[in-house]
Amino acid sequence: MPAALEVLRERMATIYDLVAMRSLLSWDQQTVMPPKGASGRIAAMRTIGQIAHRMFTDDETGRLLEAAESEMANGASSEIDAALVAVTRYDRDRALRVPPSLVSEMAEAAGEGYEVWKVARRESDFTRFQPVLERNLQLRVQLAECYGYSDSPYDALLGIYERDRRTEEVRRIFATLVPRLRPLVERVSESRDEPPGILRQQYPLQAQHEAGLEILRMLGYDANSWRIDTTVHPFASSIGLSDIRLTTRFDKNDLADSLLSSIHEFGHGLYEAQVDPALDRTPLASGCSMTLHESQSRFWENMIGRSRPFWGLALPVLQRHFPEQLGNADSETLFRAVNQMQPSLIRIESDELTYGFHIILRFELEVDLIEGRLAVSDLPEAWNSRMKEYLGIDVPSDRQGVLQDVHWSEGGIGYFPTYLLGSVLSAQIWNRMSEDLPEMEVAIAEGSFAAIRDWQREHIHRFGRMYTPVETIERAVGGPLDPEPYLDYMEKKVDMLYGSVGAART
Amino acid sequence: MPAALEVLRERMATIYDLVAMRSLLSWDQQTVMPPKGASGRIAAMRTIGQIAHRMFTDDETGRLLEAAESEMANGASSEIDAALVAVTRYDRDRALRVPPSLVSEMAEAAGEGYEVWKVARRESDFTRFQPVLERNLQLRVQLAECYGYSDSPYDALLGIYERDRRTEEVRRIFATLVPRLRPLVERVSESRDEPPGILRQQYPLQAQHEAGLEILRMLGYDANSWRIDTTVHPFASSIGLSDIRLTTRFDKNDLADSLLSSIHEFGHGLYEAQVDPALDRTPLASGCSMTLHESQSRFWENMIGRSRPFWGLALPVLQRHFPEQLGNADSETLFRAVNQMQPSLIRIESDELTYGFHIILRFELEVDLIEGRLAVSDLPEAWNSRMKEYLGIDVPSDRQGVLQDVHWSEGGIGYFPTYLLGSVLSAQIWNRMSEDLPEMEVAIAEGSFAAIRDWQREHIHRFGRMYTPVETIERAVGGPLDPEPYLDYMEKKVDMLYGSVGAART
Repeated sequence: MPAALEVLRERMATIYDLVAMRSLLSWDQQTVMPPKGASGRIAAMRTIGQIAHRMFTDDETGRLLEAAESEMANGASSEIDAALVAVTRYDRDRALRVPPSLVSEMAEAAGEGYEVWKVARRESDFTRFQPVLERNLQLRVQLAECYGYSDSPYDALLGIYERDRRTEEVRRIFATLVPRLRPLVERVSESRDEPPGILRQQYPLQAQHEAGLEILRMLGYDANSWRIDTTVHPFASSIGLSDIRLTTRFDKNDLADSLLSSIHEFGHGLYEAQVDPALDRTPLASGCSMTLHESQSRFWENMIGRSRPFWGLALPVLQRHFPEQLGNADSETLFRAVNQMQPSLIRIESDELTYGFHIILRFELEVDLIEGRLAVSDLPEAWNSRMKEYLGIDVPSDRQGVLQDVHWSEGGIGYFPTYLLGSVLSAQIWNRMSEDLPEMEVAIAEGSFAAIRDWQREHIHRFGRMYTPVETIERAVGGPLDPEPYLDYMEKKVDMLYGSVGAART
Repeated sequence: MPAALEVLRERMATIYDLVAMRSLLSWDQQTVMPPKGASGRIAAMRTIGQIAHRMFTDDETGRLLEAAESEMANGASSEIDAALVAVTRYDRDRALRVPPSLVSEMAEAAGEGYEVWKVARRESDFTRFQPVLERNLQLRVQLAECYGYSDSPYDALLGIYERDRRTEEVRRIFATLVPRLRPLVERVSESRDEPPGILRQQYPLQAQHEAGLEILRMLGYDANSWRIDTTVHPFASSIGLSDIRLTTRFDKNDLADSLLSSIHEFGHGLYEAQVDPALDRTPLASGCSMTLHESQSRFWENMIGRSRPFWGLALPVLQRHFPEQLGNADSETLFRAVNQMQPSLIRIESDELTYGFHIILRFELEVDLIEGRLAVSDLPEAWNSRMKEYLGIDVPSDRQGVLQDVHWSEGGIGYFPTYLLGSVLSAQIWNRMSEDLPEMEVAIAEGSFAAIRDWQREHIHRFGRMYTPVETIERAVGGPLDPEPYLDYMEKKVDMLYGSVGAART
């Protein structure tokens, strides 16, 4: 291996270790840390973040990177080495564009914003939140100017979560979705089906934990390199390619909430677990973008976890853990119960169909705010009128409306669209995978997930960040993001659950 | 605050954060990490250790330290600032004396040594372990040469665990102990008391966990800044002054093992928890030496946890958790059961009295090895003959003899004596504390531990490393280490449990 490249690789490995340890600090903080450890933890996380940032942006890394680029230009190099240098260059150029003062100011605004938001949400008091959001927006506009953009400053913010993703393209995709998803929402809204209460019985937490773990193990969870804990807000974290940590929450009156949330996080975890070990301790060793990550979590949560064959598989497991509650249940009832669709106020409690509108609404508002067409003071009204337009419901309070999500309090603008783009991509992946694995539904019914995991590893996971998101998506599904498979999937699912348009309802 | 001192303080705070995070990595590794996370964890721990070491030993820290020393010389400074500079100077000079190549070689030898030791112990094969120990000894002699010493290279190794502690002094203290403890060992050995089986019933683990936690809470454990988990080898770790983590182990056939081990670790944890918050994020924010640390753990484990009033307090708690096993028990029986004394082979399973000889034996062998009077090949024989001499028992295998402890496999030479010196000091502390708190035994019986904790905070804990161990011990007990109080204590305890010398046995 050429000399500069080797030294650069070693330096990036050190930075990788620091970033991984920052993930561990964060996992520990959210999962096991005694509450009073918080102040020391904030200091330690800042320290480790600063050291990593300084090491990455200092002149020594710059010199090594240039020397490595010269070495690459002068001779053959492996594809991994080429990607290592290219991704380091991309990340470093972006890191250098943002002045440290802006980084600190954003971190401070995020910390304070989060605290203000918690109170504002509790008291449903948007005016309290308004100055926080205004400050966050102003800082994000500054950040967008640092990164640069061609059409909209929002492009630059999208780019934080997915490189090269453009506002115009997201707008076009969402514009295709809206007119075809709205009739579906109307159909489920008009349905008079009573929601089956089967999921809403008393489900003791310990049994939920054990049943969930048994099901995760069938999917591919392995206690040798994974763990799962309980937190208020579930998340997945990879401390290393062989140290994957999921969290879940439990509701003693709801069987599906913890299970589907665990399966969602499993999808995130599996992505990181199946990155090529040859990429370990390089900046390539992680998921490629948030859209790709969400495509994996939503694939496992929705395409598998909300499928009919899955509930055929899960029923006997659940019956063993909940003989009283489910002794007489059939899998079709469970399948229909977890696919109940109905417009509702809260994004994270919404169903697979209406979820999309929660995202589209947020995307549109974010773009309007960042492009200066919407004043923060007018945001609640804009939120409420779009909720009426898209989902036909009135928002009774800002607590259940514009104040419900944490993202804006911390300046996380540009993140929301990746949730829905992930769903769009997951349907493309399902179709493509079905061509290679025609017996997929049978495999799910039998609990044979190895072929699915292998397909994902082979076509997506192992590459990590070796290719750009556009290239990675192209490799996975043979083309760019395309809303058609997702629309087909949703239309078929609504037909299946709520009958075809015009079909007689019984 | 003067400029250089302020910058130095900030730099030391960063290093403190890194060291604290290294503790967290280690805690995580031993407690919750999925097994396959190990290889990534080793890399990350090395990375963080190297960054901290480099930052501490680089020229910038040297310049800041010199400038801060000049500032101190030129004007008044607070006692904390003066100690910060003095301790940084002491630690840095020592760190600079050891070449990085020796640091790496010792780390490598420790890692390999540990793996070889595990196999050698399992197979009771000393010849397999011999080359490992020879290498570790050779490296420690080199280390001693780096640090320098006046009389014995062993002085330098003692100094790793307690600054300024001299081999000659330890030898003198132990030489006082031996002739007065040996008759006690003979008395308990001749006793024909049957060991009461009350502690050796079936004690379900969950109830042990709950009872243990309830008792720890009475002592001062607070879930807001402490936690306790289960590991094979119990330990205490402080991630910060408000993030204290204990671990314990459980034996379903032994009630006392987990409880006393938890109380021991509680003593370590309390020391760190009660360091003056003004010392936070400085090198002063930890226990002062291993002898002082062990004095605290042994104070809580033995002087409190093996005392008669404590078992009066604990009985009703334990009866609630173990009504079947302890419904008819009385506290005197429990008190006598946890104080069973009898020579035995394994240090960590031995009682309070015979424990001392396990330490004295190791200390003598270590000194002989380091001073070159004993060849490693002759070690098993030397071990066995001393076990016969001190405890009157034959060692049936090296597994139960010279191979039983992990310390030597990792090069930890000079550590053992601090265990017994800690016991010696704990008795001095008890006497001194009794002068200030004459009602101490009543307080223990009533479960009122605040005055004891406050005394320890006031006279020992809050100082952290502000004073040297010699100064800290002087402040705590008004003089140097003195074996008399410990001998009085042990003699009285053996009298109480086994009758006075010459008294008729019933």
